[in-house]
Amino acid sequence: MYFELFSQMKKQLGQLDKWLETATAYADSKKIESGVFGSLRLAPDQFPFARQVQITCDTAKLGAARLSGKEAPAQADTEVTLPELRARVQSVLKYLDGFAAKDFENTATRSITQPRWEGKTMTGADYMLEHVVPNFYFHLTTVYALLRHNGVAVGKRDFLGTLTQKAPAT
Amino acid sequence: MYFELFSQMKKQLGQLDKWLETATAYADSKKIESGVFGSLRLAPDQFPFARQVQITCDTAKLGAARLSGKEAPAQADTEVTLPELRARVQSVLKYLDGFAAKDFENTATRSITQPRWEGKTMTGADYMLEHVVPNFYFHLTTVYALLRHNGVAVGKRDFLGTLTQKAPAT
Repeated sequence: MYFELFSQMKKQLGQLDKWLETATAYADSKKIESGVFGSLRLAPDQFPFARQVQITCDTAKLGAARLSGKEAPAQADTEVTLPELRARVQSVLKYLDGFAAKDFENTATRSITQPRWEGKTMTGADYMLEHVVPNFYFHLTTVYALLRHNGVAVGKRDFLGTLTQKAPAT
Repeated sequence: MYFELFSQMKKQLGQLDKWLETATAYADSKKIESGVFGSLRLAPDQFPFARQVQITCDTAKLGAARLSGKEAPAQADTEVTLPELRARVQSVLKYLDGFAAKDFENTATRSITQPRWEGKTMTGADYMLEHVVPNFYFHLTTVYALLRHNGVAVGKRDFLGTLTQKAPAT
């Protein structure tokens, strides 16, 4: 289910891109300076909006890379404006397009680590469930909450996007 | 991986219970009236805090029930205070304790519907990935964001809880 979970993250990143588009139109209509959204926070000791978008992107990018034994391209985290943040989201979408189900065949038992863990490891299965999925949705929802709190017209349907549903039998 | 995803949701609900405990101590220390937290919102047209906790719980409860072909007990959504909301979380944790991996053997291809879909259906696999997981983390993170925004001392580690990590070889 790894590939399917990442496919869903791609869908969510596509929704994120749409929220940023809506936020851009809102900022333009209100003549809000281009860097204002990037520095919004819900609490003074919380990462600002731009960093939340960057971490959302990195959680998906680094998760897919580590769980398939690939090296992800480093990105400089220099985005400040909404168009720059949209470009970041789109770059990660393009990166994730390069993965196929077979890349995750050995994922469950793979040994995963990252620099800040000081040598500690997690299995691929635990890393996906305990770290990648919760972190991805945590930062994604924080971005959404910041937009909602600051008057951008996004709603629950914009969060989920279109569901794969079958019409009732007639 | 259905059972494992629900096991992770149980872990997250346990973390939610701890945030509510921290919020209760904070409210007591500041002599904040017992119903204040339950009515907090990040935007005036958003469900209030208590409803966000209830939906987080229901997403896990109804998701597990529908995906395993069981009937979940209805709950009245009458909780207002933090202790009442903690009891709701704990009731769902107890309900989820009753599931085993074998309950999800036929989940992927099961046909799922719910009242508001007016007869439309989703496969179990799509329902889990597109609906249950995103909705669960959406409402869970919204609860966390409301606490952060209102001065309760919770941080990222309280969101994720303890990770299953192996110490480095010495």
